[in-house]
Order: sequence, then structure tokens, then C-alpha cells
Amino acid sequence: MAKDVTSRAENYSQWYNDLVVKADLAEQSSVRGCMVIKPYGYAIWEKMQSQLDAMFKKTGVQNAYFPLFIPKSFFSREAEHVAGFAKECAVVTHHRLMNDPDGKGVVVDPDAKLEEELIVRPTSETIIWSTYKNWITSWRDLPILCNQWCNVVRWEMRTRLFLRTAEFLWQEGHTAHETAEEAQAKAEEMVHVYADFARNYMALPVIVGHKSPNERFAGALDTLTIEAMMQDGKALQAGTSHFLGQNFAKSFDVRFTDKQGQQQFVWATSWGVSTRLMGALIMAHGDDNGLVLPPALAPIQVVMVPIFKTDEERDAVVEKMKEVKAALEALGHSVKIDERDTLRPGFKFAEWELKGVPVRIAMGPRDLQNGTAEVHRRDTLEKMSVSVEGIDRYVHDLLDSIQKGIYEKAANYRDANIRKCDDWEEFKTEIQRGGFLLCHWDGTPETEQKIKDETKATIRCIPVDTIESDGPGKCIYSGKPSGGRVVFAISY
Amino acid sequence: MAKDVTSRAENYSQWYNDLVVKADLAEQSSVRGCMVIKPYGYAIWEKMQSQLDAMFKKTGVQNAYFPLFIPKSFFSREAEHVAGFAKECAVVTHHRLMNDPDGKGVVVDPDAKLEEELIVRPTSETIIWSTYKNWITSWRDLPILCNQWCNVVRWEMRTRLFLRTAEFLWQEGHTAHETAEEAQAKAEEMVHVYADFARNYMALPVIVGHKSPNERFAGALDTLTIEAMMQDGKALQAGTSHFLGQNFAKSFDVRFTDKQGQQQFVWATSWGVSTRLMGALIMAHGDDNGLVLPPALAPIQVVMVPIFKTDEERDAVVEKMKEVKAALEALGHSVKIDERDTLRPGFKFAEWELKGVPVRIAMGPRDLQNGTAEVHRRDTLEKMSVSVEGIDRYVHDLLDSIQKGIYEKAANYRDANIRKCDDWEEFKTEIQRGGFLLCHWDGTPETEQKIKDETKATIRCIPVDTIESDGPGKCIYSGKPSGGRVVFAISY
Repeated sequence: MAKDVTSRAENYSQWYNDLVVKADLAEQSSVRGCMVIKPYGYAIWEKMQSQLDAMFKKTGVQNAYFPLFIPKSFFSREAEHVAGFAKECAVVTHHRLMNDPDGKGVVVDPDAKLEEELIVRPTSETIIWSTYKNWITSWRDLPILCNQWCNVVRWEMRTRLFLRTAEFLWQEGHTAHETAEEAQAKAEEMVHVYADFARNYMALPVIVGHKSPNERFAGALDTLTIEAMMQDGKALQAGTSHFLGQNFAKSFDVRFTDKQGQQQFVWATSWGVSTRLMGALIMAHGDDNGLVLPPALAPIQVVMVPIFKTDEERDAVVEKMKEVKAALEALGHSVKIDERDTLRPGFKFAEWELKGVPVRIAMGPRDLQNGTAEVHRRDTLEKMSVSVEGIDRYVHDLLDSIQKGIYEKAANYRDANIRKCDDWEEFKTEIQRGGFLLCHWDGTPETEQKIKDETKATIRCIPVDTIESDGPGKCIYSGKPSGGRVVFAISY
Repeated sequence: MAKDVTSRAENYSQWYNDLVVKADLAEQSSVRGCMVIKPYGYAIWEKMQSQLDAMFKKTGVQNAYFPLFIPKSFFSREAEHVAGFAKECAVVTHHRLMNDPDGKGVVVDPDAKLEEELIVRPTSETIIWSTYKNWITSWRDLPILCNQWCNVVRWEMRTRLFLRTAEFLWQEGHTAHETAEEAQAKAEEMVHVYADFARNYMALPVIVGHKSPNERFAGALDTLTIEAMMQDGKALQAGTSHFLGQNFAKSFDVRFTDKQGQQQFVWATSWGVSTRLMGALIMAHGDDNGLVLPPALAPIQVVMVPIFKTDEERDAVVEKMKEVKAALEALGHSVKIDERDTLRPGFKFAEWELKGVPVRIAMGPRDLQNGTAEVHRRDTLEKMSVSVEGIDRYVHDLLDSIQKGIYEKAANYRDANIRKCDDWEEFKTEIQRGGFLLCHWDGTPETEQKIKDETKATIRCIPVDTIESDGPGKCIYSGKPSGGRVVFAISY
């Protein structure tokens, strides 16, 4: 078990917090609820960003940048939207400081009060749709497919590193379309981009589905989500994609002339994932020794630790390691040789395990003689003695196996913790054990709310793939007719 | 001349504004002084970012992320720093909105006043050094070489797209070192990274030098700068790198135990470039037809416009164009075939010229017969008839020539507009003609201030390369001894 990291069995929540800090991913800053993302954590986020960005661009999306600030009046134009965000807004009211007349540093200059307060964006639908108004006059101007990578602020009262912070980094896509069908299709396309990314890069077996009306984004007609199961059986919403109908177009009067010459309101989507994905990655795969990073997102995929007593031994081992490193780099892998000479190999082993590096190669003088190396895989903690001849290919294939192995482990865990439930009494005890319960639901917000009040469980999604809905049945709570099973869980 | 774009001769400043908007680079938003960066403009910025980021990483720098907000008390700890930024700060005072009791939308909730106001970062030295305090105890923790790509806010009263906006995007590097020498060397290394980038990617012949004390960053002991000449002869500061001494370490009590076991304050640098580079790029190379983009930063390097009357002709031409496109893409170039069939070729030509695409290829049925294409280079507006056989190689080499040609044109212009001046009366008339004047200066802030008051000219830099200093002489204003010539200009 890693030093100073609580075990998962002892306290899963504390294990997570310890891991984020000890593995040098992030830390609390001096500003309430705002985090500092440290270089190692940021390097993982950069890998996520660059992969997602390429996937977005493949669908025709372009990046742009819209203002950080939103005039208060814009913010309140869409009624549900403002209701959803008004209680957690950072508000800029002044634009200047001045010397304290009492000589105590600086104070806000009362003469520099803004005529209209500015909201630090919690999300950008309003400022973007006020901009799209000027970009759109005809069907020829559509679709517009913009994304931005930026920071947003939601003044959360209880924060946790990556999972819930006052400021976080994210991308938000905002698209404008001629028809409802086209917009709905775009929202679906993007949630599947997220699902592909989660599965193939994060090794996260997510369930795709629709949110129930209670859980929709403020201002959306439909919210699609990817839901992942963490190792404590709780659900984590990892990305959402919204079909916004014409709500924002109507609020900002964004119309176009269609092919028949008629004026129509524009149809909208928005979709986003955030640094919360970092939390999902850590929680889904980490173990009591530390992080377990899927090779596709690991900033360092292979670390090499030389074993030596004398300088000559070190030089000989490191020389051989440099050859292996070059061969692995030629295959597209990122490799680090840990040459620090003030630390024992065992200390280094533990540190790289804590940091989740997928493959470790150790080599000493005896290995040099025998033409071997010790290869250790992080996910299973297995050690293998491998011939140095051809080790590059071996490790290349091993990284591939690790990527798949991590996914399979998570998928097996999830499958073992999804069960159908048709009895309300059973539900109440089962849901406390963690995991997802597949249950019939009568489709009403009232029933959903009552279930939440009694058990803290919410409908994570009405699944569209992965999970069989089983067709019609009877609501587990009300006994009324249900169209199919939905996913209930207690969530982050 | 491009439609709706003012000519440079008529009004250079208006030409710039027209170009930014007409070429779809950026526009004013509804938020005072904040811009919207449109997809085409953002695509150029992304190319700048990815190149700079790679260059930073080559020097050992890692990316990280620090909070958007700075507690007011942190901000005021370094006296010069707060004096430099206090007058242009966006201040967050509240964290919640509420329904207006009078029923008119939402208002700031008076009960949600922050205990301490938060400043939206205008730059991050204070929040970063308050963080570094926890990261540094020993010389083994040094150096720290962090960079962040983010948004910052400076409440400017007079704004211009890209050149001076209330919110802008930038990168800010912040490094921590054991010794003054190491920090000074890092500041110099980074200004030269900026100079290399400006010269080799932006095709901008910049001058590297030190700022005079009057023009230093608030809190720095030395500021290095790259200065570029725009086509109106004015100077534009395109990037700065600061040696901060121990000022921030002392303000935030950041000490380390050195190799001799002594407690020392840490030495600092910071360095940044911003979306202002976009302004420099546009102003330095654009002409009356629009943008002129160096191929190294052009989102589209080659545009192909098919010429046709019938559908059959179009299909045949486009098919051939797709072959050429594939060949050019294989050589690493970005290519677009403009297949829009509602627009005339002449309209398309003008549009792509406006957008600064380096190479245009036009092809019609007669070209197909003859095995030729018309190749047009944006920088010189020359047209050439070229054999389609081998056109990929031809265009590949042409892009290289264009990159060099744009640099040479700018360098020739700059060289023709730098002159030595040793007479104060001459200075007063010459400086109004535009261009850089190389003059002796007595090294005092008083003289610099008087020259500025009388002529609006400032010392852009005390050059460290490119420009000969000529050794000692007499100050052009005071007649007192001078160590060498410095660069005077009127600046943006």
C-alpha cells in the first residue's frame, strides 16, 4: 500500500483525496473551492484535451472563444437557465481598486461600480446565442458548430478536487441548426463521441442514456449523458450533451430565413466535459498503491529504473536503457529513465506506482549479463523477466493489453454491480450496497423525487444502448405502467 | 482592393479594424472591451499556441493551471505590482443572484457578499508564488518551470481587437530558481524563444532588448522584450520576459535551504505572449487586399477554386483537384477545395485573398486538357501557369519561398525605417514620420519621460542583438554621456 494513502476499504473518499494530492495531480488553492492543477495532473488533462479536440474536429466542429463575462441581463433572459445557475454565480461589480484612505493596503474604489453587473460564466449559452444572432440570417449560415476550451465558475459550497470545484476547466460545444431533427442528431452524435472517448481512451465502460426531466440541464428539452460506475458503486456523470430546442434562439431572437423563405427560430445543442473526467479516471481505476493510468492517457507510459551499486554499473545500465528508450519512442511511446541517484530503487518503484505509470522496467548489472530486464505492469502488479532483445515490441504489445485489461476490469466490476430490482423494499436495502439498479419507473418527476427523498438514489439515465430496457413493466415505486427499465444509483 | 476594407494609405488604423472583422478573425462582444475570437481567427491562434507550447516544453517547461481569482490581500502584497494593476481590475464581490423583490428579473443577493473581494487575474505572479511557497523547501525542489495557457482581465478604457482588450488569452510562464544568474539566464532564454517564434513562424523581424526602467513590468528588476515594426512605422511590443529578482519570494516568504544548508529566498522569472500576437501578425503583413498569412501559421495553406460551366466540367476538375489535394496533404499541407456552387470564381478569389491563404490554385476544363493549373501566391499577387504533373512539389517549395519572402519584405521595410539620429530638433520631426530612431540616451528615467512628454516616443528597448549599439556617445536630449544607442519609437 502506498505511503500516506488511505486504503479504499478503510475510507474510499479519503483514499481519493489522498491520491489526488500524493500523486501530484492537484491541490486546494488559497481561493475557496478553486484548485491548482499541478503539472502531472495537467499533463493527463492535456492528453484528454488533444484527443477530444481531434474527435470534435472530425465531426466538423471548429474552436472559437467567447467572453468570460456575461451581462446580468443576458443571463436572466432564459428563465429556467437563470433559475438553474443564479444561486452559484461569481458577480463582478467593480472595475478598480484604490489605496485605502486609512492606509491599509487597497480597497474597492466605490466610484468604479459597473452600471450592470457581470457574471463570470458558469456556462456560455447566453453570451454565445447573443453572438449567434449576428452570425445567422439565412439557412446558408447554418449549421454553426463551435466549441471552446475555457474555464467556468460555479460557486459550489462543498467542493472536492476535480469532482466539484468552484472554478473548473472544460469544453463547451454550441451548435445551431435549421431543424429539430438535425439538432437532436448532433446532440446524439456528440454524446457518442464522449462515450467513444471514455471507453477507448479512459478505459471507462460508460452507459449512454437520456436524463429524466428532473435531471436535465437548465434550459434543455433533452439531456444525454454518459454515466460511469466508480469503485464504491456510486455513479459519476462524466459528460452531457443537450438538445436545447429553440429556447435560447427565442430568448435572444435568433431567426433565419429557411429554404422556403420563411423566418424560423434556430435549433440548438450544447455539450461539455470538464476536468471532472480526471476525477472519474482516478476513481475508476486507482488501487491502494495509487493511480492506475490507461496507457492512452498516461503522460509517461514506461518508466525505467536502473539498479546499480557503482558508477560504472549505473553508466552501463543507463546506456542500455537509452537504447531501449529510443526504440520505444520510435514506436510512439513516452518513456522516462529515472536516473536520480539519491533515491533507492524501492522508493522509485513505489513513487511510479503511486503515479500510475503503466509499465516499469528495471535493469541491473546481472540483467545486462543475461540480456534480460524486469518488466512490471501497473494494473495487475505482475512482474516478468523479459529478453532485452525485442523488448520494444513486447512493451508495445503489453501497453495495448494493459489498456484493454483496465477496461475489462472496470467493465466486469460494473457488470457485477448492475442488477435488476422489482421490489421496493429490496430496492431500499440494495441501493445502499452501491451499484446500479435497473428498475421500472412510471415516468413522472413526482415518483423520481419521492425515491430520491427516501433513498438518495436518482435516475442516472434512461439507457439508449449497452443496457436492455426489458420493455414495459410496472413502476417499482408506484406500480403504475413503465415503458422500460431505467438506471438508478446514488451518485457523485 | 478588398470590398469594404479601407486602404492602408487612407487610414491605417481603420484598415486594421476592417481587416479583423471582414476576414472573420474577431469581433466586439456585447461585453465592454471583451472580444469574440471567431473560428478562423482562433485557428491561427491555435497554430501559434501549439508551436509555442512545443518550444516551451523543449526547454523543460511544464504546463499547469492556477486559479482565475486572486484574493485582494495577495494582490497587494508586492507594492509595485499592485500599483501597476490596481486601476484596471475586475473585482468579484458577491457569489449569488436572487429574484428581484420588485419582480424585475434578478439582482445581486446582498447576503452573498464575499468576506474578501476576489480580483480576476490580470497576471498570476501573486497566486502562483503563494502556491510555490508550499512546493519549495530545498534546492532539490528547484528549478520549477511552469507555464499556463489562460485568460486574463485588465480593465482597459480604450480597447482594440487583439491589440488591447479587457479580456485576452495568453500564456504566462513562472519559474523559480536557486540563483540570480540562473533566473536571469532563464528570462533571456525565453525571450529568445519568443524571438525565434516571431521570426520563423510569424515572419516577424523582431528586435530583442531590455526595457528601460520606466517601461518595466510592475515588480520586475529587468524586462526583456521583442519589438516589431508595423507598416505605419509604429512599434508593437510582442512579448516580454521578466527577471523578478526575489521580490515575489520575499512578498510570499518563499525560501529554500541551499546546498550549504542556508535559508535563501527563491529567484523568479515570468514571461508571456498573448492574443496581441494576432494583431502583430495582421498589421505587419496585411495589404489592401486583406490578410497575408505566413504559411507556417495559416490554417489553410492552399485553396483550390474550380472553374466550370457545367456539372460535368465541375466534376472532372474537382476530381483532379482531389488528387492534388491528397498529394499536398501527404507533404503535410492543409488544403481546401472551395466547391461552393452559388458563388463566382472571382468572388472566391477575393474572399481567400482577404483571408490571407498563401497559395491559390485555379483549374478549369482547358487546364485539364493542357495538364496545367493557375497558381497564385498571396504575398506578391503573382500568377503562374504550372504543370499539374509535380505541382505538389512545386507548391511545397513555393510555400517555403512565401514564408521567407514575407519575412524578407518585413525585414526590408524595417531596415529602411530604422535610422540613427543625433540631433534633438531632427528627432522631433523624424519621429513623427514613423519608424525606429537609434539614439544615445543618458540612462535616466527623467530624460526618457521628457522625451515622451514632448514627442510621445518611448524607448522600445536597449537592444541586445540585431542592432549595433555604436558604443558610448552623448544623449540626444541632455547631452550627457550614453553607453550606447537605444531604440526610440511611437508604439501601440
